[in-house]
Amino acid sequence: MAKPTVGVDLGGTKVLAAVVDGRDVGESTKRPTPTDGPEAVVSAIAEMVEELGGAHRLGVGTPGYVDDDGVVGGVPNLQGWDPPVPLRAMLREATGVAHLAVDNDVNAAALGEVAHGAAEGHHDVLCVFMGTGVGGGLVLSGELRRGPRGLAGEIGHLVVRHGGRACACGGNGHVEAYAGRAGMEAEARRRHAAGEETALVDIAGDDRMKSSVFDKALKKGDRVAEELMEEAVVAVGTAIASAVMLVDVDLVVVGGGVADKLGPELVARVGAESSGLLGEALAVPVVPAALGDDAGVVGAALLGERA
Amino acid sequence: MAKPTVGVDLGGTKVLAAVVDGRDVGESTKRPTPTDGPEAVVSAIAEMVEELGGAHRLGVGTPGYVDDDGVVGGVPNLQGWDPPVPLRAMLREATGVAHLAVDNDVNAAALGEVAHGAAEGHHDVLCVFMGTGVGGGLVLSGELRRGPRGLAGEIGHLVVRHGGRACACGGNGHVEAYAGRAGMEAEARRRHAAGEETALVDIAGDDRMKSSVFDKALKKGDRVAEELMEEAVVAVGTAIASAVMLVDVDLVVVGGGVADKLGPELVARVGAESSGLLGEALAVPVVPAALGDDAGVVGAALLGERA
Repeated sequence: MAKPTVGVDLGGTKVLAAVVDGRDVGESTKRPTPTDGPEAVVSAIAEMVEELGGAHRLGVGTPGYVDDDGVVGGVPNLQGWDPPVPLRAMLREATGVAHLAVDNDVNAAALGEVAHGAAEGHHDVLCVFMGTGVGGGLVLSGELRRGPRGLAGEIGHLVVRHGGRACACGGNGHVEAYAGRAGMEAEARRRHAAGEETALVDIAGDDRMKSSVFDKALKKGDRVAEELMEEAVVAVGTAIASAVMLVDVDLVVVGGGVADKLGPELVARVGAESSGLLGEALAVPVVPAALGDDAGVVGAALLGERA
Repeated sequence: MAKPTVGVDLGGTKVLAAVVDGRDVGESTKRPTPTDGPEAVVSAIAEMVEELGGAHRLGVGTPGYVDDDGVVGGVPNLQGWDPPVPLRAMLREATGVAHLAVDNDVNAAALGEVAHGAAEGHHDVLCVFMGTGVGGGLVLSGELRRGPRGLAGEIGHLVVRHGGRACACGGNGHVEAYAGRAGMEAEARRRHAAGEETALVDIAGDDRMKSSVFDKALKKGDRVAEELMEEAVVAVGTAIASAVMLVDVDLVVVGGGVADKLGPELVARVGAESSGLLGEALAVPVVPAALGDDAGVVGAALLGERA
């Protein structure tokens, strides 16, 4: 039997590899992301591909900016990485797979949503993923927009409030500062430290304030949680409106852990905000992502299919 | 002798038509823009083309959004126009020119700057034109980005301050509200009416506050003029930073009447603002436009060349 296509979703905490056929995710394997640098990650991926019986084609989605040669730059959440890292070349050497592609993880997920998910059949699409941070992928005229430096789609770092809340990247007023789980947690803890009562801290304690914590606090009617969520909705809606004016898309997909957990209601609020800003004539539909946790490996496999 | 290529720059106050060969603008003719609707404008353009000895190829840059069929929508500053207006079809009928293209005027100017101006040789470029309003054109991977609705490049309507200053389009906090000549004039008059002294109103009186008025007031050290200019610089610099994060370009060109009048110093300030926001690693060069008033007809002729 011919070897299959394998998609790999390389994340900050885990690596997921799966045999993928179009939308269908078959056999898969998962392990914690090695924390001792890119060589260890490359070895782990090679072993996982082997476990799955090898690959004829291999696609990998990774955090960071990725250039046309598969070199990774700027990866804040992979420990022990000192960019630039020539990930594609290293993976080719370790796996021997000839049809091999590496791209940004969010770009891969966006490709997945356009090919097999919520944006199937659309050619001009912005995908926004709300998780720990806020990432995006842009498909223009049917092609993933990468840009000369592989930067394109970084909607989390659009400025929506000049001089506004500090972002983890060092900037100010970025979407991610208001709408990323980490930025929202930081703001909740600041407000709590300043004396405000909030169920967010009561529920999370000293642990990471997961999406489920926001969900529970919102269901209790917690005021701080609601205010943070409203700021997140405004930030993402504003960025979507700006993106539509700049590149003109006809569909926006919103996914990621936070959006998946808080559900279609959150996505509807984001859509209402962006439509209000764009006005009736220019508004575009904003819909929930359809692939959920599969988007990463399905999109990565697509990269491999095209390599 | 073969008939030439003619470029037409259709503006809110005047129509300029010229024989164009690459960067070279030859014989030209100009008249006030007819104010009684699209038929009169089309007749005027046909007469002007005739005056120039006819055209083998014809390109027209017009205000408004233009779809792939040359139909114009949303034209706030052409009197008597009730969109949609099938401008390309009307021009074909009136002129008989087979190789005929119509696009947004700012898109045309951007094409001109990329082919023969400040962005020659670049493939991923954002052009920002600061005039009465703020327009933009986006060239991605060597192609003008138009988008499914012809909206792309509208950088003047990116939101840089959520809930900020009212824009002429009905929105709030848009770049154009801070950096368009009309928006700056409106704010200067509001501040004057509220009791603030400003040389801007002393110089302009009840007349339109032209770019030269801002130039004179700035040279006098007028505080209101300087504050308005700083807000304009921040707005445009912020929008450029956001655009770079979203689509990744490697050059930004700033032109238009206000930028041309206030000169390279203004462009340098805009560049410093955007570089400060992007940080050293991601900053892109921001340079003044090179074609000045020729950008419109040179770019329009390029449209015709490609039709």
